[in-house]
Amino acid sequence: MADYTLYYWPLPFRGQFIRAVLAHTGKTWDEPDIDAITGVMGRDVDDQPLPFMAPPLVVDHANDVAMAQMPAVLAYLGTSLGIMPDDPERTALTHKIIADANDVLDEVTRFGGRSMWIREEWESFASDRLPRWAQIFEATGRAHGLQADSGHMLGTDAPGLADLATATLWFTMTAKLPELTDLVRENAPRVAALAHRIMSTEALAQMRDDTDTRFGNAWCGGQIEASIREMLNGD
Amino acid sequence: MADYTLYYWPLPFRGQFIRAVLAHTGKTWDEPDIDAITGVMGRDVDDQPLPFMAPPLVVDHANDVAMAQMPAVLAYLGTSLGIMPDDPERTALTHKIIADANDVLDEVTRFGGRSMWIREEWESFASDRLPRWAQIFEATGRAHGLQADSGHMLGTDAPGLADLATATLWFTMTAKLPELTDLVRENAPRVAALAHRIMSTEALAQMRDDTDTRFGNAWCGGQIEASIREMLNGD
Repeated sequence: MADYTLYYWPLPFRGQFIRAVLAHTGKTWDEPDIDAITGVMGRDVDDQPLPFMAPPLVVDHANDVAMAQMPAVLAYLGTSLGIMPDDPERTALTHKIIADANDVLDEVTRFGGRSMWIREEWESFASDRLPRWAQIFEATGRAHGLQADSGHMLGTDAPGLADLATATLWFTMTAKLPELTDLVRENAPRVAALAHRIMSTEALAQMRDDTDTRFGNAWCGGQIEASIREMLNGD
Repeated sequence: MADYTLYYWPLPFRGQFIRAVLAHTGKTWDEPDIDAITGVMGRDVDDQPLPFMAPPLVVDHANDVAMAQMPAVLAYLGTSLGIMPDDPERTALTHKIIADANDVLDEVTRFGGRSMWIREEWESFASDRLPRWAQIFEATGRAHGLQADSGHMLGTDAPGLADLATATLWFTMTAKLPELTDLVRENAPRVAALAHRIMSTEALAQMRDDTDTRFGNAWCGGQIEASIREMLNGD
């Protein structure tokens, strides 16, 4: 039996952050199919593992704990698996970086595809807020000693949750949407290098091989992914 | 000089969660005006107190720490002010409740007013997802022993960050949009009672008097608040 069960759509997107943490810490997990996910989502709230709205949902079998909401799942795993900083400021900064990553996902996908991209709005986003987000990550890393070829987001000795979240965000986005690679490299060169280093470790390369095999070239999925690709191919 | 500086718009909304924590823990804070907020937002990321996109931003003067992103600010304050649970599971549950609260704010405001409400979509939201959110909070409290007239969201002895976040969400929303009171009472009666108890303590009643004086009847502000009120008044 696997250590954890991850209920998440067959896509990278938010689930990939959780997969990265589990792979990096040497844990095993299984992923139920879509019917199981929609089944647990649709139950009466009192019959759910914990009352929750939408995936990701993670069950820690050894400790009989269920947790939902990507930032809360990462907080739970980060603390219990020993990759959270040990001081309140850097712990909060880790939460801040995760919230920023979540905002970037929301903004690129227009909040889960609530509307489709139109050319003028995409151009504005890709020349203003998206590079600004990349600069925010870069400045955060730089403030804590991140170098082009070494170091971590928050100056820790070993890669922590903030590094894994940062790497998952920018590496996965540019691997699946390679037209964004230059934007990220130009606005966040140290972060791009960190993301490449982190995601190239044996554990994370193997996790990516597995998800690439399962999900192909998909990133967020749905009509909004088609809309993003339409914008990128038209550039 | 105040203990903290809170950069947030002259509105309850996300800022009210931070005000509630500071008031509950007996701290003082000042709130710079809109020009100061837009000034710090617009700076080059390397010249900001910490690189960030948008308010809330909090500066802790005693410890010389700046933090942004509402969930990360609450995590920082919760930990450093001693209102975070002392075990990893309930700490993660606190993060989960805060993320849920943040999602409720996003959904009611259609992600910061990215589109306006139309009648059919509002009716669907107000009869499906919004009551479901209320039920999620109620089931969470009930699972940890919350009673109609006593107890806390996570079964702690004293009110913690999860209680303050829950109370701020549902009390403020129904105080400013009273048409939603019945929906919340019917789907989350214990949470509604908890919210009333918490927000009626001397410290929090005084905080509310102050923000009511400063912000009047506003909740999230902007065109989207007008759109929400149009839906509610048409019911």
